[in-house]
Amino acid sequence: MDKCIRFGVSLPEMLLERFDRDIEKKGYANRSEAIRDLIRQSLVESEWSDSKSETAAAVVLVYDHHKRGLTEHLTNAQHEHHESIISTMHAHLDHDNCIEVVLLRGIAKVVKSIADKLVSAKHVKHGKFVPTTLGKEL
Amino acid sequence: MDKCIRFGVSLPEMLLERFDRDIEKKGYANRSEAIRDLIRQSLVESEWSDSKSETAAAVVLVYDHHKRGLTEHLTNAQHEHHESIISTMHAHLDHDNCIEVVLLRGIAKVVKSIADKLVSAKHVKHGKFVPTTLGKEL
Amino acid sequence: MDKCIRFGVSLPEMLLERFDRDIEKKGYANRSEAIRDLIRQSLVESEWSDSKSETAAAVVLVYDHHKRGLTEHLTNAQHEHHESIISTMHAHLDHDNCIEVVLLRGIAKVVKSIADKLVSAKHVKHGKFVPTTLGKEL
Amino acid sequence: MDKCIRFGVSLPEMLLERFDRDIEKKGYANRSEAIRDLIRQSLVESEWSDSKSETAAAVVLVYDHHKRGLTEHLTNAQHEHHESIISTMHAHLDHDNCIEVVLLRGIAKVVKSIADKLVSAKHVKHGKFVPTTLGKEL
Repeated sequence: MDKCIRFGVSLPEMLLERFDRDIEKKGYANRSEAIRDLIRQSLVESEWSDSKSETAAAVVLVYDHHKRGLTEHLTNAQHEHHESIISTMHAHLDHDNCIEVVLLRGIAKVVKSIADKLVSAKHVKHGKFVPTTLGKEL
Repeated sequence: MDKCIRFGVSLPEMLLERFDRDIEKKGYANRSEAIRDLIRQSLVESEWSDSKSETAAAVVLVYDHHKRGLTEHLTNAQHEHHESIISTMHAHLDHDNCIEVVLLRGIAKVVKSIADKLVSAKHVKHGKFVPTTLGKEL
Repeated sequence: MDKCIRFGVSLPEMLLERFDRDIEKKGYANRSEAIRDLIRQSLVESEWSDSKSETAAAVVLVYDHHKRGLTEHLTNAQHEHHESIISTMHAHLDHDNCIEVVLLRGIAKVVKSIADKLVSAKHVKHGKFVPTTLGKEL
Repeated sequence: MDKCIRFGVSLPEMLLERFDRDIEKKGYANRSEAIRDLIRQSLVESEWSDSKSETAAAVVLVYDHHKRGLTEHLTNAQHEHHESIISTMHAHLDHDNCIEVVLLRGIAKVVKSIADKLVSAKHVKHGKFVPTTLGKEL
Protein backbone atom coordinates (compact mmCIF):
# COMPACT_ATOMS: atom_id res chain seq x y z
CA MET A 1 0.00 0.00 0.00
CA ASP A 2 1.06 3.62 -0.54
CA LYS A 3 2.71 5.19 2.47
CA CYS A 4 1.45 8.74 3.07
CA ILE A 5 3.69 11.62 4.06
CA ARG A 6 2.45 14.72 5.86
CA PHE A 7 4.06 18.12 5.40
CA GLY A 8 3.22 21.75 6.15
CA VAL A 9 2.00 24.30 3.61
CA SER A 10 1.83 28.03 4.34
CA LEU A 11 -0.90 30.18 2.75
CA PRO A 12 -2.03 33.81 3.20
CA GLU A 13 -5.18 33.78 5.34
CA MET A 14 -7.44 35.35 2.69
CA LEU A 15 -6.25 32.96 0.01
CA LEU A 16 -6.91 30.01 2.30
CA GLU A 17 -10.44 31.21 3.11
CA ARG A 18 -11.22 31.62 -0.56
CA PHE A 19 -9.77 28.20 -1.35
CA ASP A 20 -11.87 26.59 1.41
CA ARG A 21 -15.07 28.14 0.03
CA ASP A 22 -14.16 27.06 -3.50
CA ILE A 23 -13.42 23.41 -2.70
CA GLU A 24 -16.52 23.12 -0.51
CA LYS A 25 -18.60 24.24 -3.50
CA LYS A 26 -16.81 21.66 -5.69
CA GLY A 27 -17.62 18.91 -3.21
CA TYR A 28 -14.15 18.06 -1.90
CA ALA A 29 -14.00 16.34 1.48
CA ASN A 30 -10.97 18.33 2.68
CA ARG A 31 -7.96 20.45 1.64
CA SER A 32 -5.58 17.52 1.23
CA GLU A 33 -7.92 15.86 -1.27
CA ALA A 34 -8.28 19.06 -3.30
CA ILE A 35 -4.54 19.76 -3.28
CA ARG A 36 -3.79 16.16 -4.34
CA ASP A 37 -6.07 16.67 -7.35
CA LEU A 38 -4.34 19.93 -8.35
CA ILE A 39 -0.95 18.24 -8.04
CA ARG A 40 -1.99 15.21 -10.09
CA GLN A 41 -3.46 17.42 -12.80
CA SER A 42 -0.20 19.40 -13.06
CA LEU A 43 1.85 16.17 -13.20
CA VAL A 44 -0.26 14.78 -16.03
CA GLU A 45 0.39 18.00 -17.95
CA SER A 46 4.13 17.69 -17.33
CA GLU A 47 3.94 14.05 -18.46
CA TRP A 48 2.57 15.16 -21.83
CA SER A 49 5.06 17.97 -22.27
CA ASP A 50 7.74 15.25 -22.46
CA SER A 51 7.12 13.53 -25.80
CA LYS A 52 8.94 10.38 -24.61
CA SER A 53 6.78 9.64 -21.55
CA GLU A 54 4.90 6.37 -21.46
CA THR A 55 1.31 7.38 -21.07
CA ALA A 56 -2.34 6.89 -22.09
CA ALA A 57 -4.89 8.80 -24.16
CA ALA A 58 -8.39 8.61 -25.59
CA VAL A 59 -9.65 9.69 -28.99
CA VAL A 60 -13.34 10.57 -29.34
CA LEU A 61 -14.77 10.48 -32.89
CA VAL A 62 -18.24 11.35 -34.19
CA TYR A 63 -18.99 10.25 -37.74
CA ASP A 64 -21.61 9.07 -40.21
CA HIS A 65 -21.01 5.33 -40.65
CA HIS A 66 -22.73 5.41 -44.05
CA LYS A 67 -19.87 7.34 -45.59
CA ARG A 68 -18.23 4.98 -48.02
CA GLY A 69 -14.97 3.56 -46.76
CA LEU A 70 -14.81 5.42 -43.47
CA THR A 71 -15.53 2.54 -41.07
CA GLU A 72 -13.06 0.38 -42.95
CA HIS A 73 -10.47 3.14 -42.95
CA LEU A 74 -10.80 3.67 -39.18
CA THR A 75 -10.67 -0.06 -38.49
CA ASN A 76 -7.58 -0.48 -40.67
CA ALA A 77 -5.84 2.48 -39.04
CA GLN A 78 -6.51 0.95 -35.64
CA HIS A 79 -5.27 -2.50 -36.63
CA GLU A 80 -2.09 -1.03 -38.05
CA HIS A 81 -1.37 0.27 -34.56
CA HIS A 82 -2.93 -2.58 -32.58
CA GLU A 83 0.04 -2.69 -30.18
CA SER A 84 -0.85 0.85 -29.00
CA ILE A 85 -4.62 0.39 -28.81
CA ILE A 86 -6.15 -0.85 -25.58
CA SER A 87 -9.76 -1.06 -26.72
CA THR A 88 -12.50 0.68 -28.68
CA MET A 89 -16.12 1.45 -27.83
CA HIS A 90 -18.70 2.26 -30.46
CA ALA A 91 -22.21 3.61 -29.85
CA HIS A 92 -25.09 4.72 -32.08
CA LEU A 93 -26.33 8.30 -31.79
CA ASP A 94 -29.05 8.06 -34.44
CA HIS A 95 -29.70 6.33 -37.77
CA ASP A 96 -26.59 7.87 -39.34
CA ASN A 97 -24.27 9.12 -36.65
CA CYS A 98 -22.11 7.14 -34.30
CA ILE A 99 -19.58 7.95 -31.61
CA GLU A 100 -16.42 5.96 -31.12
CA VAL A 101 -13.82 6.09 -28.35
CA VAL A 102 -10.38 4.60 -28.87
CA LEU A 103 -8.13 4.09 -25.84
CA LEU A 104 -4.40 4.25 -26.54
CA ARG A 105 -1.23 3.62 -24.53
CA GLY A 106 2.43 4.09 -25.40
CA ILE A 107 5.06 6.77 -25.93
CA ALA A 108 3.40 10.21 -25.93
CA LYS A 109 4.66 11.14 -29.40
CA VAL A 110 3.53 7.86 -30.98
CA VAL A 111 0.12 7.97 -29.32
CA LYS A 112 -0.40 11.55 -30.52
CA SER A 113 0.46 10.69 -34.12
CA ILE A 114 -1.95 7.73 -34.22
CA ALA A 115 -4.65 9.99 -32.79
CA ASP A 116 -3.95 12.64 -35.47
CA LYS A 117 -4.49 10.04 -38.18
CA LEU A 118 -7.88 9.05 -36.75
CA VAL A 119 -9.09 12.62 -36.15
CA SER A 120 -8.12 13.89 -39.62
CA ALA A 121 -9.81 11.00 -41.47
CA LYS A 122 -12.22 12.19 -44.18
CA HIS A 123 -15.89 12.24 -43.07
CA VAL A 124 -15.07 12.35 -39.35
CA LYS A 125 -17.40 15.15 -38.24
CA HIS A 126 -15.74 15.83 -34.91
CA GLY A 127 -12.60 14.36 -33.44
CA LYS A 128 -10.98 15.10 -30.10
CA PHE A 129 -7.69 13.96 -28.65
CA VAL A 130 -7.71 13.51 -24.85
CA PRO A 131 -4.30 13.15 -23.19
CA THR A 132 -4.52 11.30 -19.85
CA THR A 133 -2.20 9.01 -17.87
CA LEU A 134 -1.35 5.42 -16.95
CA GLY A 135 -1.87 6.45 -13.33
CA LYS A 136 1.52 5.21 -12.07
CA GLU A 137 3.05 7.18 -9.18
CA LEU A 138 -0.05 9.35 -9.00
CA MET B 1 -28.70 11.89 -48.95
CA ASP B 2 -27.22 15.29 -48.13
CA LYS B 3 -27.46 17.69 -51.01
CA CYS B 4 -24.24 19.66 -51.46
CA ILE B 5 -24.16 23.36 -52.26
CA ARG B 6 -21.23 25.10 -53.92
CA PHE B 7 -20.38 28.73 -53.27
CA GLY B 8 -17.46 31.08 -53.82
CA VAL B 9 -14.97 32.18 -51.20
CA SER B 10 -12.52 35.01 -51.73
CA LEU B 11 -9.06 34.91 -50.10
CA PRO B 12 -5.92 37.07 -50.39
CA GLU B 13 -3.44 35.22 -52.60
CA MET B 14 -0.74 34.92 -49.91
CA LEU B 15 -3.19 33.63 -47.33
CA LEU B 16 -4.47 31.04 -49.80
CA GLU B 17 -0.95 29.82 -50.63
CA ARG B 18 -0.15 29.47 -46.96
CA PHE B 19 -3.42 27.62 -46.34
CA ASP B 20 -2.73 25.22 -49.21
CA ARG B 21 0.71 24.38 -47.82
CA ASP B 22 -0.73 23.89 -44.34
CA ILE B 23 -3.56 21.53 -45.33
CA GLU B 24 -1.27 19.50 -47.58
CA LYS B 25 1.00 18.92 -44.61
CA LYS B 26 -2.03 17.90 -42.51
CA GLY B 27 -3.07 15.36 -45.16
CA TYR B 28 -6.30 16.93 -46.43
CA ALA B 29 -7.45 15.88 -49.90
CA ASN B 30 -8.59 19.39 -50.90
CA ARG B 31 -9.61 22.85 -49.66
CA SER B 32 -13.32 22.02 -49.33
CA GLU B 33 -12.56 19.13 -46.99
CA ALA B 34 -10.28 21.28 -44.80
CA ILE B 35 -12.79 24.16 -44.69
CA ARG B 36 -15.63 21.76 -43.79
CA ASP B 37 -13.57 20.56 -40.82
CA LEU B 38 -12.90 24.12 -39.63
CA ILE B 39 -16.61 24.94 -39.93
CA ARG B 40 -17.73 21.82 -38.06
CA GLN B 41 -15.24 22.46 -35.27
CA SER B 42 -16.53 26.02 -34.83
CA LEU B 43 -20.15 24.81 -34.82
CA VAL B 44 -19.44 22.24 -32.10
CA GLU B 45 -17.92 25.04 -30.00
CA SER B 46 -21.02 27.20 -30.55
CA GLU B 47 -23.17 24.22 -29.60
CA TRP B 48 -21.46 24.01 -26.22
CA SER B 49 -21.61 27.74 -25.56
CA ASP B 50 -25.40 27.35 -25.45
CA SER B 51 -26.09 25.46 -22.22
CA LYS B 52 -29.46 24.26 -23.53
CA SER B 53 -28.24 22.47 -26.68
CA GLU B 54 -28.86 18.77 -27.00
CA THR B 55 -25.45 17.30 -27.40
CA ALA B 56 -22.98 14.52 -26.50
CA ALA B 57 -19.85 14.24 -24.37
CA ALA B 58 -17.31 11.77 -23.03
CA VAL B 59 -15.71 11.58 -19.60
CA VAL B 60 -12.33 9.87 -19.28
CA LEU B 61 -11.36 8.70 -15.77
CA VAL B 62 -8.16 7.07 -14.50
CA TYR B 63 -8.36 5.54 -11.03
CA ASP B 64 -7.14 2.84 -8.68
CA HIS B 65 -10.01 0.35 -8.44
CA HIS B 66 -8.69 -0.91 -5.07
CA LYS B 67 -9.70 2.32 -3.36
CA ARG B 68 -12.51 1.42 -1.04
CA GLY B 69 -15.90 2.45 -2.31
CA LEU B 70 -14.78 4.20 -5.51
CA THR B 71 -16.02 1.65 -8.06
CA GLU B 72 -19.33 1.46 -6.24
CA HIS B 73 -19.56 5.23 -6.04
CA LEU B 74 -18.89 5.66 -9.79
CA THR B 75 -21.37 2.93 -10.70
CA ASN B 76 -24.05 4.45 -8.48
CA ALA B 77 -23.47 7.93 -9.90
CA GLN B 78 -23.86 6.53 -13.40
CA HIS B 79 -27.03 4.62 -12.59
CA GLU B 80 -28.57 7.70 -11.01
CA HIS B 81 -28.24 9.35 -14.41
CA HIS B 82 -28.81 6.29 -16.59
CA GLU B 83 -31.10 8.25 -18.92
CA SER B 84 -28.13 10.45 -19.91
CA ILE B 85 -25.53 7.69 -20.21
CA ILE B 86 -25.07 5.93 -23.54
CA SER B 87 -22.46 3.41 -22.48
CA THR B 88 -19.29 2.88 -20.48
CA MET B 89 -16.00 1.19 -21.36
CA HIS B 90 -13.54 0.01 -18.74
CA ALA B 91 -9.98 -1.17 -19.32
CA HIS B 92 -7.10 -2.26 -17.10
CA LEU B 93 -3.85 -0.30 -17.21
CA ASP B 94 -1.96 -2.37 -14.64
CA HIS B 95 -2.61 -4.29 -11.42
CA ASP B 96 -4.06 -1.21 -9.71
CA ASN B 97 -5.01 1.38 -12.30
CA CYS B 98 -7.88 1.36 -14.71
CA ILE B 99 -9.25 3.74 -17.29
CA GLU B 100 -12.95 4.27 -17.81
CA VAL B 101 -14.79 6.20 -20.53
CA VAL B 102 -18.41 7.24 -20.02
CA LEU B 103 -20.40 8.45 -23.04
CA LEU B 104 -23.18 10.92 -22.25
CA ARG B 105 -25.96 12.57 -24.22
CA GLY B 106 -28.50 15.23 -23.27
CA ILE B 107 -28.82 18.93 -22.52
CA ALA B 108 -25.35 20.51 -22.36
CA LYS B 109 -25.80 21.84 -18.83
CA VAL B 110 -27.06 18.51 -17.45
CA VAL B 111 -24.32 16.51 -19.18
CA LYS B 112 -21.66 18.86 -17.79
CA SER B 113 -22.96 18.53 -14.22
CA ILE B 114 -22.99 14.72 -14.35
CA ALA B 115 -19.45 14.80 -15.68
CA ASP B 116 -18.35 17.12 -12.85
CA LYS B 117 -19.65 14.63 -10.32
CA LEU B 118 -17.65 11.78 -11.87
CA VAL B 119 -14.43 13.78 -12.28
CA SER B 120 -14.44 15.17 -8.73
CA ALA B 121 -15.04 11.77 -7.08
CA LYS B 122 -12.48 10.98 -4.37
CA HIS B 123 -9.58 8.77 -5.55
CA VAL B 124 -10.07 9.58 -9.24
CA LYS B 125 -6.46 10.30 -10.23
CA HIS B 126 -7.24 12.07 -13.49
CA GLY B 127 -10.56 13.04 -14.98
CA LYS B 128 -11.26 14.83 -18.23
CA PHE B 129 -14.50 16.15 -19.68
CA VAL B 130 -14.68 16.01 -23.48
CA PRO B 131 -17.51 18.01 -25.10
CA THR B 132 -18.43 16.65 -28.53
CA THR B 133 -21.63 16.47 -30.61
CA LEU B 134 -24.57 14.31 -31.70
CA GLY B 135 -23.46 14.96 -35.27
CA LYS B 136 -26.82 16.22 -36.53
CA GLU B 137 -26.69 18.86 -39.27
CA LEU B 138 -22.93 18.56 -39.37
CA MET C 1 0.00 42.69 5.69
CA ASP C 2 -1.28 39.22 4.83
CA LYS C 3 -1.18 36.86 7.77
CA CYS C 4 -0.01 33.40 6.74
CA ILE C 5 -1.56 30.20 8.02
CA ARG C 6 0.23 26.87 8.10
CA PHE C 7 -1.61 23.58 7.77
CA GLY C 8 -0.76 19.95 7.06
CA VAL C 9 -1.25 18.15 3.74
CA SER C 10 -0.98 14.40 3.36
CA LEU C 11 0.34 12.88 0.11
CA PRO C 12 1.27 9.34 -0.99
CA GLU C 13 5.07 9.06 -0.88
CA MET C 14 5.47 8.31 -4.61
CA LEU C 15 3.24 11.20 -5.61
CA LEU C 16 5.22 13.55 -3.37
CA GLU C 17 8.56 12.43 -4.84
CA ARG C 18 7.26 12.98 -8.35
CA PHE C 19 5.87 16.40 -7.41
CA ASP C 20 9.20 17.42 -5.88
CA ARG C 21 11.08 16.45 -9.05
CA ASP C 22 8.54 18.31 -11.19
CA ILE C 23 8.60 21.59 -9.26
CA GLU C 24 12.39 21.56 -9.03
CA LYS C 25 12.52 21.34 -12.83
CA LYS C 26 10.04 24.23 -13.07
CA GLY C 27 12.23 26.35 -10.80
CA TYR C 28 10.01 26.63 -7.72
CA ALA C 29 11.78 27.47 -4.46
CA ASN C 30 9.69 25.06 -2.38
CA ARG C 31 6.43 23.05 -2.17
CA SER C 32 4.40 25.84 -0.55
CA GLU C 33 5.19 28.21 -3.41
CA ALA C 34 4.23 25.61 -6.05
CA ILE C 35 1.01 24.69 -4.24
CA ARG C 36 0.05 28.37 -3.84
CA ASP C 37 0.39 28.77 -7.62
CA LEU C 38 -1.82 25.73 -8.32
CA ILE C 39 -4.43 27.06 -5.88
CA ARG C 40 -4.43 30.56 -7.37
CA GLN C 41 -4.74 29.19 -10.90
CA SER C 42 -7.78 27.10 -9.90
CA LEU C 43 -9.38 30.08 -8.14
CA VAL C 44 -9.01 32.29 -11.22
CA GLU C 45 -10.74 29.57 -13.25
CA SER C 46 -13.58 29.43 -10.70
CA GLU C 47 -13.81 33.22 -10.84
CA TRP C 48 -14.46 33.08 -14.58
CA SER C 49 -16.98 30.25 -14.36
CA ASP C 50 -19.21 32.69 -12.42
CA SER C 51 -20.36 35.21 -15.03
CA LYS C 52 -21.10 37.79 -12.32
CA SER C 53 -17.61 37.97 -10.75
CA GLU C 54 -15.77 41.27 -10.83
CA THR C 55 -12.59 40.50 -12.66
CA ALA C 56 -10.01 41.57 -15.27
CA ALA C 57 -9.04 40.46 -18.77
CA ALA C 58 -6.83 41.31 -21.71
CA VAL C 59 -7.60 41.23 -25.42
CA VAL C 60 -4.72 40.80 -27.86
CA LEU C 61 -5.38 41.87 -31.47
CA VAL C 62 -3.18 41.67 -34.58
CA TYR C 63 -4.37 43.66 -37.58
CA ASP C 64 -3.40 45.61 -40.66
CA HIS C 65 -3.95 49.27 -39.75
CA HIS C 66 -4.27 50.19 -43.46
CA LYS C 67 -7.63 48.44 -43.70
CA ARG C 68 -10.16 51.18 -44.20
CA GLY C 69 -12.17 51.96 -41.10
CA LEU C 70 -10.67 49.33 -38.80
CA THR C 71 -8.63 51.61 -36.52
CA GLU C 72 -11.59 53.94 -36.21
CA HIS C 73 -13.94 51.02 -35.53
CA LEU C 74 -11.71 49.62 -32.76
CA THR C 75 -11.25 53.05 -31.18
CA ASN C 76 -14.99 53.69 -31.22
CA ALA C 77 -15.76 50.29 -29.75
CA GLN C 78 -13.31 50.99 -26.94
CA HIS C 79 -14.70 54.45 -26.22
CA GLU C 80 -18.23 53.09 -26.09
CA HIS C 81 -17.08 50.91 -23.20
CA HIS C 82 -14.54 53.31 -21.69
CA GLU C 83 -15.79 52.57 -18.15
CA SER C 84 -14.59 48.94 -18.58
CA ILE C 85 -11.28 49.68 -20.26
CA ILE C 86 -8.19 50.24 -18.13
CA SER C 87 -5.73 51.04 -20.89
CA THR C 88 -4.55 50.10 -24.36
CA MET C 89 -1.09 49.49 -25.77
CA HIS C 90 -0.32 49.58 -29.48
CA ALA C 91 2.89 48.47 -31.18
CA HIS C 92 4.08 48.16 -34.78
CA LEU C 93 5.08 44.76 -36.10
CA ASP C 94 6.00 45.87 -39.63
CA HIS C 95 4.87 48.39 -42.25
CA ASP C 96 1.33 47.00 -42.28
CA ASN C 97 0.73 44.95 -39.18
CA CYS C 98 0.26 46.12 -35.63
CA ILE C 99 -0.48 44.45 -32.32
CA GLU C 100 -2.81 45.97 -29.74
CA VAL C 101 -3.53 44.92 -26.17
CA VAL C 102 -6.66 46.17 -24.42
CA LEU C 103 -6.93 45.71 -20.64
CA LEU C 104 -10.45 45.39 -19.29
CA ARG C 105 -12.05 45.22 -15.84
CA GLY C 106 -15.63 44.65 -14.74
CA ILE C 107 -18.29 41.95 -14.48
CA ALA C 108 -17.08 38.77 -16.24
CA LYS C 109 -20.02 38.62 -18.64
CA VAL C 110 -19.73 42.26 -19.67
CA VAL C 111 -15.97 42.06 -20.13
CA LYS C 112 -16.35 38.94 -22.28
CA SER C 113 -18.94 40.57 -24.54
CA ILE C 114 -16.79 43.68 -25.14
CA ALA C 115 -13.88 41.39 -25.97
CA ASP C 116 -16.03 39.43 -28.45
CA LYS C 117 -16.86 42.65 -30.27
CA LEU C 118 -13.18 43.58 -30.63
CA VAL C 119 -12.03 40.08 -31.68
CA SER C 120 -14.76 39.63 -34.32
CA ALA C 121 -14.16 43.02 -35.97
CA LYS C 122 -13.61 42.77 -39.73
CA HIS C 123 -9.92 42.75 -40.77
CA VAL C 124 -8.66 41.68 -37.35
CA LYS C 125 -6.24 38.91 -38.38
CA HIS C 126 -5.93 37.30 -34.98
CA GLY C 127 -7.72 38.06 -31.76
CA LYS C 128 -7.36 36.38 -28.40
CA PHE C 129 -9.32 36.84 -25.18
CA VAL C 130 -7.28 36.33 -22.00
CA PRO C 131 -9.27 35.98 -18.76
CA THR C 132 -7.22 36.93 -15.72
CA THR C 133 -7.99 38.45 -12.30
CA LEU C 134 -8.04 41.64 -10.20
CA GLY C 135 -5.75 39.80 -7.80
CA LYS C 136 -7.85 40.43 -4.68
CA GLU C 137 -7.74 37.70 -2.03
CA LEU C 138 -5.14 35.83 -4.06
CA MET D 1 -2.00 45.51 -52.27
CA ASP D 2 -3.14 41.93 -51.69
CA LYS D 3 -4.62 40.29 -54.75
CA CYS D 4 -7.70 38.23 -53.88
CA ILE D 5 -8.45 34.83 -55.39
CA ARG D 6 -11.91 33.33 -55.59
CA PHE D 7 -12.53 29.58 -55.47
CA GLY D 8 -15.46 27.24 -54.93
CA VAL D 9 -16.26 25.37 -51.73
CA SER D 10 -18.81 22.58 -51.52
CA LEU D 11 -20.85 22.05 -48.33
CA PRO D 12 -23.80 19.81 -47.39
CA GLU D 13 -26.93 21.98 -47.43
CA MET D 14 -27.78 21.44 -43.74
CA LEU D 15 -24.24 22.23 -42.63
CA LEU D 16 -24.29 25.41 -44.71
CA GLU D 17 -27.60 26.55 -43.21
CA ARG D 18 -26.30 25.97 -39.70
CA PHE D 19 -23.07 27.81 -40.50
CA ASP D 20 -25.01 30.78 -41.91
CA ARG D 21 -27.12 31.03 -38.73
CA ASP D 22 -24.01 30.76 -36.55
CA ILE D 23 -21.98 33.45 -38.31
CA GLU D 24 -24.95 35.81 -38.42
CA LYS D 25 -25.24 35.50 -34.64
CA LYS D 26 -21.51 36.19 -34.33
CA GLY D 27 -21.86 39.34 -36.41
CA TYR D 28 -19.94 38.35 -39.54
CA ALA D 29 -20.76 40.28 -42.72
CA ASN D 30 -20.59 37.21 -44.99
CA ARG D 31 -19.30 33.64 -45.37
CA SER D 32 -15.95 34.64 -46.90
CA GLU D 33 -15.15 36.81 -43.89
CA ALA D 34 -16.04 34.04 -41.42
CA ILE D 35 -14.09 31.41 -43.36
CA ARG D 36 -11.05 33.71 -43.58
CA ASP D 37 -11.11 34.01 -39.78
CA LEU D 38 -11.27 30.23 -39.31
CA ILE D 39 -8.37 29.77 -41.72
CA ARG D 40 -6.23 32.44 -40.06
CA GLN D 41 -6.89 30.96 -36.63
CA SER D 42 -5.79 27.50 -37.82
CA LEU D 43 -2.65 28.96 -39.45
CA VAL D 44 -1.64 30.74 -36.24
CA GLU D 45 -1.97 27.40 -34.42
CA SER D 46 0.22 25.70 -37.03
CA GLU D 47 2.72 28.54 -36.70
CA TRP D 48 3.09 27.79 -32.99
CA SER D 49 3.36 24.03 -33.46
CA ASP D 50 6.64 24.72 -35.30
CA SER D 51 9.04 25.83 -32.56
CA LYS D 52 11.27 27.61 -35.11
CA SER D 53 8.65 29.98 -36.56
CA GLU D 54 9.22 33.71 -36.21
CA THR D 55 6.19 34.93 -34.36
CA ALA D 56 4.74 37.17 -31.62
CA ALA D 57 3.24 36.64 -28.17
CA ALA D 58 1.93 38.46 -25.13
CA VAL D 59 2.40 37.67 -21.45
CA VAL D 60 -0.19 38.91 -18.98
CA LEU D 61 0.89 39.09 -15.33
CA VAL D 62 -1.05 40.06 -12.19
CA TYR D 63 1.04 40.69 -9.09
CA ASP D 64 1.39 42.62 -5.86
CA HIS D 65 4.08 45.22 -6.54
CA HIS D 66 4.83 45.48 -2.79
CA LYS D 67 6.39 42.04 -2.76
CA ARG D 68 10.06 42.58 -2.12
CA GLY D 69 12.22 42.19 -5.19
CA LEU D 70 9.46 41.22 -7.63
CA THR D 71 9.30 44.41 -9.70
CA GLU D 72 13.08 44.45 -9.89
CA HIS D 73 13.17 40.78 -10.83
CA LEU D 74 10.61 41.23 -13.64
CA THR D 75 12.38 44.33 -14.96
CA ASN D 76 15.73 42.54 -14.96
CA ALA D 77 14.29 39.50 -16.70
CA GLN D 78 12.86 41.75 -19.39
CA HIS D 79 16.08 43.67 -19.90
CA GLU D 80 18.05 40.46 -20.22
CA HIS D 81 15.87 39.66 -23.22
CA HIS D 82 15.37 43.21 -24.51
CA GLU D 83 15.99 42.11 -28.11
CA SER D 84 12.81 39.96 -27.93
CA ILE D 85 10.59 42.46 -26.10
CA ILE D 86 8.56 44.93 -28.13
CA SER D 87 7.03 46.85 -25.25
CA THR D 88 5.44 46.60 -21.82
CA MET D 89 2.28 48.13 -20.38
CA HIS D 90 1.65 48.41 -16.67
CA ALA D 91 -1.63 49.37 -14.97
CA HIS D 92 -2.83 49.62 -11.37
CA LEU D 93 -5.74 47.45 -10.26
CA ASP D 94 -5.86 48.65 -6.65
CA HIS D 95 -3.49 49.78 -3.90
CA ASP D 96 -1.54 46.52 -4.05
CA ASN D 97 -2.24 44.73 -7.29
CA CYS D 98 -1.09 45.60 -10.76
CA ILE D 99 -1.43 44.05 -14.18
CA GLU D 100 1.39 44.01 -16.70
CA VAL D 101 1.42 43.00 -20.35
CA VAL D 102 4.69 42.20 -22.09
CA LEU D 103 4.72 41.95 -25.90
CA LEU D 104 7.35 39.64 -27.36
CA ARG D 105 8.58 38.77 -30.85
CA GLY D 106 11.08 36.19 -32.06
CA ILE D 107 11.56 32.46 -32.58
CA ALA D 108 8.60 30.59 -31.03
CA LYS D 109 10.79 28.49 -28.72
CA VAL D 110 12.76 31.47 -27.43
CA VAL D 111 9.64 33.58 -26.89
CA LYS D 112 8.00 30.74 -24.96
CA SER D 113 11.00 30.29 -22.66
CA ILE D 114 11.17 34.01 -21.80
CA ALA D 115 7.45 33.94 -21.05
CA ASP D 116 7.89 30.89 -18.78
CA LYS D 117 10.48 32.80 -16.76
CA LEU D 118 8.12 35.74 -16.23
CA VAL D 119 5.05 33.61 -15.42
CA SER D 120 6.85 31.39 -12.88
CA ALA D 121 8.41 34.31 -10.97
CA LYS D 122 7.73 34.17 -7.24
CA HIS D 123 4.79 36.34 -6.10
CA VAL D 124 3.21 36.53 -9.57
CA LYS D 125 -0.41 35.74 -8.67
CA HIS D 126 -1.58 34.89 -12.17
CA GLY D 127 0.40 34.63 -15.37
CA LYS D 128 -0.82 33.77 -18.83
CA PHE D 129 1.08 33.16 -22.04
CA VAL D 130 -0.75 34.24 -25.20
CA PRO D 131 0.66 32.96 -28.51
CA THR D 132 -0.30 35.19 -31.42
CA THR D 133 1.32 36.16 -34.75
CA LEU D 134 3.35 38.77 -36.65
CA GLY D 135 0.46 38.89 -39.11
CA LYS D 136 2.57 38.27 -42.24
CA GLU D 137 0.85 36.35 -45.05
CA LEU D 138 -2.37 36.34 -43.05
